Amino acid sequence: MNRGIVTTEHIQEFKNFIGASFVFADEETLRHYGHDETEQLLFPPEVVLKPRTATEISAIMRFCNTHQIPVTPRGAGTGLSGGAIPHLGGVLLSMERLDTIINIDERNLQVTTEPGVITEVLQNAVKEKGLFYPPDPSSRGSCFIGGNIAENSGGPKAVKYGVVKDYVLNLEVVLPTGDIIWTGANVLKNSTGYNLTQLMVGSEGTLGIVTKIVLKLIPLPAYDLLMLVPFKSLEKASEAVSAIFRAGFTPSALELVEIDAILITAKMLDNYVVPITDDVEAHLIIETDGNDMDVLMKEMEAISELLMHYDAGDILFADDAQQKNELWKLRRRVAEAVKVSGYTIEEDTVVPRAELPKLVRAVKALGKQYDFHAVCYGHAGDGNLHIRIKKEGIPDSYGNAVMHTILRALFEEVKALGGTISGEHGVGLIQKDYVDIVFADANLKLMRGIKQLFDPNNILNAGKIFDLH
Amino acid sequence: MNRGIVTTEHIQEFKNFIGASFVFADEETLRHYGHDETEQLLFPPEVVLKPRTATEISAIMRFCNTHQIPVTPRGAGTGLSGGAIPHLGGVLLSMERLDTIINIDERNLQVTTEPGVITEVLQNAVKEKGLFYPPDPSSRGSCFIGGNIAENSGGPKAVKYGVVKDYVLNLEVVLPTGDIIWTGANVLKNSTGYNLTQLMVGSEGTLGIVTKIVLKLIPLPAYDLLMLVPFKSLEKASEAVSAIFRAGFTPSALELVEIDAILITAKMLDNYVVPITDDVEAHLIIETDGNDMDVLMKEMEAISELLMHYDAGDILFADDAQQKNELWKLRRRVAEAVKVSGYTIEEDTVVPRAELPKLVRAVKALGKQYDFHAVCYGHAGDGNLHIRIKKEGIPDSYGNAVMHTILRALFEEVKALGGTISGEHGVGLIQKDYVDIVFADANLKLMRGIKQLFDPNNILNAGKIFDLH
Repeated sequence: MNRGIVTTEHIQEFKNFIGASFVFADEETLRHYGHDETEQLLFPPEVVLKPRTATEISAIMRFCNTHQIPVTPRGAGTGLSGGAIPHLGGVLLSMERLDTIINIDERNLQVTTEPGVITEVLQNAVKEKGLFYPPDPSSRGSCFIGGNIAENSGGPKAVKYGVVKDYVLNLEVVLPTGDIIWTGANVLKNSTGYNLTQLMVGSEGTLGIVTKIVLKLIPLPAYDLLMLVPFKSLEKASEAVSAIFRAGFTPSALELVEIDAILITAKMLDNYVVPITDDVEAHLIIETDGNDMDVLMKEMEAISELLMHYDAGDILFADDAQQKNELWKLRRRVAEAVKVSGYTIEEDTVVPRAELPKLVRAVKALGKQYDFHAVCYGHAGDGNLHIRIKKEGIPDSYGNAVMHTILRALFEEVKALGGTISGEHGVGLIQKDYVDIVFADANLKLMRGIKQLFDPNNILNAGKIFDLH
Repeated sequence: MNRGIVTTEHIQEFKNFIGASFVFADEETLRHYGHDETEQLLFPPEVVLKPRTATEISAIMRFCNTHQIPVTPRGAGTGLSGGAIPHLGGVLLSMERLDTIINIDERNLQVTTEPGVITEVLQNAVKEKGLFYPPDPSSRGSCFIGGNIAENSGGPKAVKYGVVKDYVLNLEVVLPTGDIIWTGANVLKNSTGYNLTQLMVGSEGTLGIVTKIVLKLIPLPAYDLLMLVPFKSLEKASEAVSAIFRAGFTPSALELVEIDAILITAKMLDNYVVPITDDVEAHLIIETDGNDMDVLMKEMEAISELLMHYDAGDILFADDAQQKNELWKLRRRVAEAVKVSGYTIEEDTVVPRAELPKLVRAVKALGKQYDFHAVCYGHAGDGNLHIRIKKEGIPDSYGNAVMHTILRALFEEVKALGGTISGEHGVGLIQKDYVDIVFADANLKLMRGIKQLFDPNNILNAGKIFDLH
């Protein structure tokens, strides 16, 4: 812990760089910026800086690099792996004032934006031009696009349209040393040098601070259809997932939600009515989209028929925009609802799609073995299963040996199934104890080497993903 | 030049590692492996090794690392940037015996393959299972999938389906030090650590030797339609390209071929009949694909109507499989035909799609200024334009000051339009003199640092992309 490193002289310098009104050291602000949406963690920084430009950020980084002051960049603070938590104290660098959509290029189907734009705001802005930016994490109404870049976020649409990395063409980045670079070019194909753009995406704010983002856009599909499908068994539901793809369909969303999660969320949202019979264990939420309604209708019918082979119950079709919104609202608020109801630990496992039934079985078996409850939900079409754990007597999750044992056992299973420990949330602070499960020493040596190359003094979001020593 | 570094003792060691019958030092073999498809370059290695396994390659790399012997990995030798040319002598490591498709996983829509499999062989193998691996460089009938990874290859389908990088899930890599790693996991989403997989894709064999490849597959579309559209002006043709996307269509191929290239190729192929009227300057080749023929027909009609606003001439629809094959054959053999006819220098420029008309104009203007002929063709839908240059009195292309001046002027234009110097061929040996145009010093410093991290003794494909010093 480096707490106490920021002096009043440092703070005066920061005021010179960005103006006194954007430098905060009061307790309330420090406390607010000391956490993200990761359960129960609170590490207030020593100072909060709210710069406006890459040039200001460059000045801050040069100074902090010289004085070896830890810097933690932060978007909207919606992260689920503690990536934006300033656990070493020092400077919290909030990106909230870099909040402008710079240019929607309708000729080239691209958008250039600053990182502090809320993802849904960006999506709506391009939608008005008939364009589509698909990646849509559940927090899209509050998260920043910059944070999405840092974590390589996904969301329901990823199953058809891919994740953030598939849309990033070019990034302006302030390096820890203060240099400002563009990582690539605003082109759809690029075989010119090492792919620094993709190295930056998903690097969790440890290699540089993204200050401008060029994203590829695609034409907005004209129609979508949505249905909710109940299953008598969680395993059957997860088996049905890969069957849909094997039959040649690519839904635009394919979500799995275990019944406990649906019930808890429906209760929290009040008044929301899902027709649930006693013998339902899980639901699939299936969306298709495209430009021809007849084709979509046929596709949905064919999928429905296929699902009957997996003991699907009565399918609920969302009839209109309102029903669709209600259903998506239910899905998007699952994480929040189950967290409030005591499932405080969220894991973000991902396996090859067809191994989902095995993962589900393994989770339940581990629950019996270690005496915990788990609810599963997530982006089943991508094999990305969020597992929320509740264990009586262990309210504070990550900081104890019992939970450590459970999580190691879970991640060993995930690894054995060909998967890895994070599909879209990142490793951050809370999963770094487990990266040795999925990476060989040689991998970690390369990653640490890359970190040292970009950040020789280890000042930028240090101690996330892995420790250097 | 390190020529003369490989001793008879070294060669004996290589024989111990992989068997005497796979070690070659005869002049004919050395000469054969001294070039690729890049024009006129010949640098024979000192020894050619044909290992069979990652373990054998690991032993070779450990040894060469210890003895600081240059190693150049080589796929099928179809590269167009000199990436596989052993310009420093030393060891040529041919991947031709790692030629097995290990597993087509129909449950998870993935294929695991060795790098020495011909791309088209791989495509056909998965096609038999109803699956689709889209990236299809023109050389797909002879190039290796491993080489495609090294160069981040594209091809006509990239415009709808993306390039190689969009399909690579995981790679087994022998590092220059001999360590063997897997870069990621066999999953569709991954936010676990730095993206070593994407760092490896397009690194032109300078960071490690890929020995196993896990690729994502998608369902094979049932139908496609193809048409050839003549335009009175090259500029109008290139303007039509972005109009198609702006209207909401995403063709599965959108190729541009200038008339001289079509005529030269048609002549070489003999008997091939393209209906050409005197006033045609360029053609677009447009393909759409999907699972509903009615939808495709409607789409093609709508595109045809749109093109009339850009002075398109009479459209030729390919009626059957044979006509489609003929048309694609014509397109795929353009590079070879124009090369034979004296357009020896190929550049692989890429710009944002809508800037294509400006690029085309700039090429013609430069041609007048510097007195050279150029033919343009390529993947216009991606803004990726291949420019073939013929200049009287300069037969040997890259090695002279006049051509250097021309290429710098061309690449400066490309950069000014927001583009970069290689869309799918790589920088390799022949374009490294120009990377300073598109990269800042800070970018190059990071890239050189990455190279040094992976390859501390600079033995693996050294001097490609950039020089270290």
